[in-house]
Amino acid sequence: MTEAERPVRSRRRTLSTRRLEAFSDGVLAIAITLLVLDITVRPPGALADVLQEWPAYLAYVVSFLTIGAVWLAHTTLTEVLARADPILSRLNLLLLLAVSFLPFPTRMVADSLSLAPTGPERVAVTLYGLVLLAVRILLAGLFAYASRQGLLIEALARPDSEEVAAVRRKFAPTIFAYAATVGVGLLIPIAAVAVYFGIAIFVVTPFRLVTRLLRHQHDPATNE
Amino acid sequence: MTEAERPVRSRRRTLSTRRLEAFSDGVLAIAITLLVLDITVRPPGALADVLQEWPAYLAYVVSFLTIGAVWLAHTTLTEVLARADPILSRLNLLLLLAVSFLPFPTRMVADSLSLAPTGPERVAVTLYGLVLLAVRILLAGLFAYASRQGLLIEALARPDSEEVAAVRRKFAPTIFAYAATVGVGLLIPIAAVAVYFGIAIFVVTPFRLVTRLLRHQHDPATNE
Amino acid sequence: MTEAERPVRSRRRTLSTRRLEAFSDGVLAIAITLLVLDITVRPPGALADVLQEWPAYLAYVVSFLTIGAVWLAHTTLTEVLARADPILSRLNLLLLLAVSFLPFPTRMVADSLSLAPTGPERVAVTLYGLVLLAVRILLAGLFAYASRQGLLIEALARPDSEEVAAVRRKFAPTIFAYAATVGVGLLIPIAAVAVYFGIAIFVVTPFRLVTRLLRHQHDPATNE
Amino acid sequence: MTEAERPVRSRRRTLSTRRLEAFSDGVLAIAITLLVLDITVRPPGALADVLQEWPAYLAYVVSFLTIGAVWLAHTTLTEVLARADPILSRLNLLLLLAVSFLPFPTRMVADSLSLAPTGPERVAVTLYGLVLLAVRILLAGLFAYASRQGLLIEALARPDSEEVAAVRRKFAPTIFAYAATVGVGLLIPIAAVAVYFGIAIFVVTPFRLVTRLLRHQHDPATNE
Repeated sequence: MTEAERPVRSRRRTLSTRRLEAFSDGVLAIAITLLVLDITVRPPGALADVLQEWPAYLAYVVSFLTIGAVWLAHTTLTEVLARADPILSRLNLLLLLAVSFLPFPTRMVADSLSLAPTGPERVAVTLYGLVLLAVRILLAGLFAYASRQGLLIEALARPDSEEVAAVRRKFAPTIFAYAATVGVGLLIPIAAVAVYFGIAIFVVTPFRLVTRLLRHQHDPATNE
Repeated sequence: MTEAERPVRSRRRTLSTRRLEAFSDGVLAIAITLLVLDITVRPPGALADVLQEWPAYLAYVVSFLTIGAVWLAHTTLTEVLARADPILSRLNLLLLLAVSFLPFPTRMVADSLSLAPTGPERVAVTLYGLVLLAVRILLAGLFAYASRQGLLIEALARPDSEEVAAVRRKFAPTIFAYAATVGVGLLIPIAAVAVYFGIAIFVVTPFRLVTRLLRHQHDPATNE
Repeated sequence: MTEAERPVRSRRRTLSTRRLEAFSDGVLAIAITLLVLDITVRPPGALADVLQEWPAYLAYVVSFLTIGAVWLAHTTLTEVLARADPILSRLNLLLLLAVSFLPFPTRMVADSLSLAPTGPERVAVTLYGLVLLAVRILLAGLFAYASRQGLLIEALARPDSEEVAAVRRKFAPTIFAYAATVGVGLLIPIAAVAVYFGIAIFVVTPFRLVTRLLRHQHDPATNE
Repeated sequence: MTEAERPVRSRRRTLSTRRLEAFSDGVLAIAITLLVLDITVRPPGALADVLQEWPAYLAYVVSFLTIGAVWLAHTTLTEVLARADPILSRLNLLLLLAVSFLPFPTRMVADSLSLAPTGPERVAVTLYGLVLLAVRILLAGLFAYASRQGLLIEALARPDSEEVAAVRRKFAPTIFAYAATVGVGLLIPIAAVAVYFGIAIFVVTPFRLVTRLLRHQHDPATNE
């Protein structure tokens, strides 16, 4: 590569990252907002009817938190991403494919849970769990690929990239948990949905920062 | 922290704020635009049928103004936000959860108001009011957290951050007004919707600027 | 204002413009894309059924071009906007309110035109025309307000801001044309829709550039 | 053009490109995410019912990949775009019109394929293929116009703009393939959908990079 080409190439790379972010933000924002379209109250709409739709609200919150967690992890990744390459863009498209598909099984779970726990409920909860699992695996794959291909900013080779570490530490346990819960869902669908809710809470919680803030509250002198 | 890490950390923080803005803009823009999907005219669609849907239009405008006001306040916040932290991101997600849920009770209000004022209408209006109240409390919480954790740019400690002050001055009265109106809605649902419309107008109006512009019109010499 | 505050204030203003753009882009992009949701083919879906839906396609294209024209004009405005003020943000919200409402009358027109030209069709086309008129007036108001309050970059005071002039030149004739066509629509609804299509084409066409390109083709020597 | 105007003009051009990107990202992100709204499972929703909806999943994936490919190509274009002009903006709007229309024939294909291969299926698949063809022609037209009008950054005149070349090399074969497959679809609709899937995979695959990565894996010494 000659010197003259360098500015063009570097501009190209920066832009790649920016549009990857913009497009992903768009798809994630739309997928998370479309979820509400699938909540419906059957008439007449008295208080009992509204409360009876609780599976729809639960599925809504689980899917919202799951997509929210993808956005948080995605932000952490792109913040340390020095540049994108064509394969990273495709992996990202696959992740967005899985995320934007999520409203479909969410609606199925919401619809099936309001009935008696028969076959359909098992099908809906299993499909839902498989999509959640796929989202998580693709997200981990995106991190692994970017890191292995040297697409991250150099400072990341150091041990202090705490936020990225915090995201990566959660990949293995959550993938295992999702896989196990898909199995649980075949037996007791409603229990699986409760576990998916728990996993979403676990993924979203920033344990280190919460701990530090709590510690600082007790000992304000250490607060910087 | 060594000197070498500084640029990386600072880049990371700036980006956090940028994607927080981009994602929030996306969700708010989608939620505000999805509202129109819930307006439907029952056939045959003569003028009387169209006019009869006025509760749908009223609920549309109230929700539009409410989300618009969240966007305006959010813009004011992020303009003075020096950096984000993981908890701020989660509080923001909770705010977006409440906002993106708003189309659901909006539709319920629109559907129920076109009937006689029976039980369902009371349920719909109360749920609507509670979501509006939650949105407002979460927005105030976001401001309070950012300010207490020192995430704002330094100049804000000064008394001249007029726009932020204008937003904050309205939090206490509107939260109180929403809470009181939820109570009113239990007795006279339609009156509560009228008050929600009034609150939305109050929140959106930039009183100081309007006053200043009017004063300048009368005395053009002071116009800079 | 002391010197120390200046960078903060200036940063604030720049950001205002940026988020105004981002939010407007979001709402316009969503409104323009949601239009497709209202096209439906009644079964069985043979070729005759698909072709018979032509009013839906026509209304789709007219609304798409109208929103596209708003986006083009909006881009032209924000490109010369030095800063935003609270009232400009509210005027912009009103414009977005009108634009994001557009899918509703578009659907009404599409639904009513496939029937015989009775009352409902007249109602739908009139409502559609009034919303198109409101969009156009609000857009002109946004330009007028920004220009009168000195929010535009200084270079614009000069006579060479050709693109802004090109947008502004079309405001008066199109507002007049929309108003007149609303009247026409009360008599012959389908003729009004045809005129709305013509106006949209007129607004979107960049006459000067087309003329210049055509002239250059005939006389390639003048091509720079 | 005097020297004083230059900074304003240049700022204007840069902004044009940025909002062209932002608006296109928005429309593409929404169109790609709306696709999921058209997947529905008819009750009761047992495993057989879910699997029977395979044409809906296939159409979903083909349309997702097609829009994803448009986004990838669009990114490649805007990365080398020095500035936009009014005609490029309109061509881009036409491209977005075709892309945002895609969910409609996608739904038609999904609906018709679950029935016996009668007339309607042929109509749906043909309309789908024509829209895919139009998207591809408009995308190629956008590249051709930008290149002919000198809107690309100068470095592109050199032979090393590998990514743009990779995108352009695929235009002719895919346009030919789409046109031929529309003909095939008139005879065997389902075969055409399978070919559309194949074309989407072909368009999205970055052959050069994949080849290079595979070669590097076998001979790690050449890895830079």
